[in-house]
Amino acid sequence: KMQNTPGISATLFRALGRNGINVIAIAQGSLELNISVVIKNESLKRALNVIHDEFFLSTYKELNIFIAGIGLVGSSLLKQLQNQSKVLFDEHNLKVNLMGITNSRRMLVRSKAIPLDQCKEILKNEGEKADISSFAQKVRKMNLRNSVFIDCTADATVASVYGSFLSGYVSVVAANKIACSSDYEYYLSLKNMASERGVRFMYETTVGAGLPIIKTISDLILSGDRIYKIEAVLSGTLNFIFNELSAELPLSKAIRKAREKGYSEPDPRIDLSGTDVVRKILILAREAGYRIEQKDVEVKKFLPDRCFEGDLNEFYKHVEELDAEFESKRLEMVKQKKKWRFFATLDRGKASVGLVDVDQDHPSYNLEGSNNIVLLTTERYKELPMVIKGYGAGAEVTAAGVFADLMRVVNV
Amino acid sequence: KMQNTPGISATLFRALGRNGINVIAIAQGSLELNISVVIKNESLKRALNVIHDEFFLSTYKELNIFIAGIGLVGSSLLKQLQNQSKVLFDEHNLKVNLMGITNSRRMLVRSKAIPLDQCKEILKNEGEKADISSFAQKVRKMNLRNSVFIDCTADATVASVYGSFLSGYVSVVAANKIACSSDYEYYLSLKNMASERGVRFMYETTVGAGLPIIKTISDLILSGDRIYKIEAVLSGTLNFIFNELSAELPLSKAIRKAREKGYSEPDPRIDLSGTDVVRKILILAREAGYRIEQKDVEVKKFLPDRCFEGDLNEFYKHVEELDAEFESKRLEMVKQKKKWRFFATLDRGKASVGLVDVDQDHPSYNLEGSNNIVLLTTERYKELPMVIKGYGAGAEVTAAGVFADLMRVVNV
Repeated sequence: KMQNTPGISATLFRALGRNGINVIAIAQGSLELNISVVIKNESLKRALNVIHDEFFLSTYKELNIFIAGIGLVGSSLLKQLQNQSKVLFDEHNLKVNLMGITNSRRMLVRSKAIPLDQCKEILKNEGEKADISSFAQKVRKMNLRNSVFIDCTADATVASVYGSFLSGYVSVVAANKIACSSDYEYYLSLKNMASERGVRFMYETTVGAGLPIIKTISDLILSGDRIYKIEAVLSGTLNFIFNELSAELPLSKAIRKAREKGYSEPDPRIDLSGTDVVRKILILAREAGYRIEQKDVEVKKFLPDRCFEGDLNEFYKHVEELDAEFESKRLEMVKQKKKWRFFATLDRGKASVGLVDVDQDHPSYNLEGSNNIVLLTTERYKELPMVIKGYGAGAEVTAAGVFADLMRVVNV
Repeated sequence: KMQNTPGISATLFRALGRNGINVIAIAQGSLELNISVVIKNESLKRALNVIHDEFFLSTYKELNIFIAGIGLVGSSLLKQLQNQSKVLFDEHNLKVNLMGITNSRRMLVRSKAIPLDQCKEILKNEGEKADISSFAQKVRKMNLRNSVFIDCTADATVASVYGSFLSGYVSVVAANKIACSSDYEYYLSLKNMASERGVRFMYETTVGAGLPIIKTISDLILSGDRIYKIEAVLSGTLNFIFNELSAELPLSKAIRKAREKGYSEPDPRIDLSGTDVVRKILILAREAGYRIEQKDVEVKKFLPDRCFEGDLNEFYKHVEELDAEFESKRLEMVKQKKKWRFFATLDRGKASVGLVDVDQDHPSYNLEGSNNIVLLTTERYKELPMVIKGYGAGAEVTAAGVFADLMRVVNV
């Protein structure tokens, strides 16, 4: 009954318009008992579904997700979504539909939600050959409301198609650092496109995994604060290595241990060179409002160049030659009650990464294991910085950070 | 031109419906050149405004705010909003309108936005006698989209009318601790009402001012994490006092100093009794999913009962009698390299507050000045807790936290 109930026609026409169904003619009698619309025949079935959903089903919001990468982080995320689906529906009126999935080999986009617990088998059985561009085209074509593309890969090709999602009104949640730490122009164009289209581009987990770092900086900036300084330990791998150093465990062995524990990349030089940390401080610097490129970040390497040439065997040989030197430096530090920390620093727009020795009073002195820490000195947090500390890596905490980003897309 | 442009009628009817204008009859010709609607005469003017706004102005979102309390925090917030208005509009397509304002004496609700820089004079000149219930009624009646009531008071009466805002589709952002730390039933009813109405009830700044504590706990819980333990120093006043203690500055003098610096309440016993900390740990415990009342929080007072009886002079006399005892305890602690911290603890659902001595390795050992610190031990942050540290009070940082809550209401 429409009589005296404002909003019925709004609901009807909003649902039709949102789904791309053009209304040719309308008639509503003054008794407000019925309303008629004329549409094209080809839109008929869709219109009936849309109207049915809108009036009889939609007491809840739907979030349609498309996920790339189902390794450790992606799998954890799917599991968290599955475990929380009842809570999300019961307490937040939110239904999350997995509508598409791809890894480096296969891809699948379906018009019906893919069961979370069987998605890997379904992808294997029903998926076609993976191609991220055509994946993006399929997602755009579906034109579903509240669509989000989630990038749980570390792949540059995947990062290169974000624009294609965003311009098609699909939000992007990235755990992948590449897009945000590549050319500033690309990063900016993605931000602008998201803003123009009214969708979200989020990447909290690219720095510090699930720690609330990027949203904190972004909130501060938005309210008019200014970030003067960021000091951060952002490499769990490097922090682990420097925490492990001892008379019994020289540098070369500590590196091997990090490798064995799965903390470092297969080639640990990717961590030791600081490249990963450069990307992270770049992301934070940009979030803090600085227009900065990767080449602007000063890198103070703590290993000589020869370590980064040749193969892994040569690398370990070179490091072994340095073990004694590092050990004597370490003993000197112990005497001075200092510790090594691999710091990323942003100081009034100037970014650098390198090994720093900190004394007992520094908040990073007791930074355990592979933890991360971020110190923010701002106009408002001036004499004493804001400090955020905790696990900076790990599938579960990273997935939880992606989960939180997803919830912000639908404002839950 | 409506032809082949899906969504025109949706926009029209959504705008009318949202503004409570009932459509009696509709006619749209099949050429799609015009559309006619029949409405009641009394709605005519409003309908014209609504349609004009919707089609010719609304390239941006509007956030309509109503603020109670224009003391330090409220004034800082208004200033931040004023300073950021250009950024919000240019970069986020957001226009923030101050539509109502009240303090304990006067109130004003206007149909036209109140200039932020003149609002205090305007309130003084044009305001009527303050009454928070009738303020709430006026706000509800205005029935504006994206309306938010902001409570920057510490007033129980103000906290008692949140339900009236929320049930009228007005979001509530509170810096006031009272509603969230009163009866669980009231707190729960507010949460549920916000959820049912699709509006927001936010209160990040009730604990740790601008530090991202509540949203972090809430994000963790939502993704399925479980909070096992919260250890926190949540009273800047008490932390300041215990940091100041020295041979020259005994307890009674440290308390006086906190009072003089404006860190404590006029009657410092409000801080010393731990009541404020009880409220804060209650809020965190509830956010962590525990159904808990104020009486369930165990309070271990560090001053004898006689200090909390009688007037302020008697209080200081009693504390002076305790100075020597505290000083000898303090010397003992120095010898053991320990420090006093006033902790709030939640351990698997059991909450308590009291003085604890921590050793050098504890993250709160170096907690400077009046800072706050929160340690979260969860299913995922298990062996090493997540740590968040920084100013836990202050007008600027609190206002920035309220600002961030506001942005989440409109999902910026």
